[in-house]
Amino acid sequence: MQKIDFAKGDGLVPVIVQYYRSREVLMVAYMNREAWEKTRKTGKAHYYSRSRKGLWLKGEESGHYQEVKDAFIDCDNDTLLLQVRQLGGGACHMGYRSCFFRKSKKGRGGWKVSAKRLFDPEKVYKKS
Amino acid sequence: MQKIDFAKGDGLVPVIVQYYRSREVLMVAYMNREAWEKTRKTGKAHYYSRSRKGLWLKGEESGHYQEVKDAFIDCDNDTLLLQVRQLGGGACHMGYRSCFFRKSKKGRGGWKVSAKRLFDPEKVYKKS
Repeated sequence: MQKIDFAKGDGLVPVIVQYYRSREVLMVAYMNREAWEKTRKTGKAHYYSRSRKGLWLKGEESGHYQEVKDAFIDCDNDTLLLQVRQLGGGACHMGYRSCFFRKSKKGRGGWKVSAKRLFDPEKVYKKS
Repeated sequence: MQKIDFAKGDGLVPVIVQYYRSREVLMVAYMNREAWEKTRKTGKAHYYSRSRKGLWLKGEESGHYQEVKDAFIDCDNDTLLLQVRQLGGGACHMGYRSCFFRKSKKGRGGWKVSAKRLFDPEKVYKKS
């Protein structure tokens, strides 16, 4: 198996997460080797949280797990793409299906919300 | 216009590039503020090359420009998603439509080429 190049990004690779059917991009996160191995073994997406500095099972708090369908590696071996089934409808902690819920036409106008909020984050995430 | 947070990544933000129709993820690149401004003004995707340490107009050598259709910003203001029309068929310097041309079923098997090569890189890129 060609190796993922974790060294280039100081132990981390960016991971693009895409809904496997619609191909909508849901979020971008990071994995270290441990997160990748846990993801492979469990079939559920695990990431490395740069703010909390530790392993993070996506959905551990919200129940919004991501079941991995397929993984892709880029030509430089330093970026991953996951196609997942997103449980609970939304990947974004702000209650949207995708973290990319604000759009700018051709990048020229302002950012405008272009998606519907699916859930109330306060009801899904405990206060920490 | 909400500001893109360039500070978090030392002046750079990752940019996910997606074909605007099929939603196929083509590549991941980086932008600094200058690249973003050039992209907005010209309608053609410009990036910051971390290896060459400078502005890079995608397609400047190959002619495979990317026309920007829509831009999206993520909930943390530190990652962009571009939907583009990819000229010349392929975004990858190795001759594939997408840089993510190797796939692993559920991330468990090896990486296998899952796409067709569209062009011969040696005929498109000059040797430098």
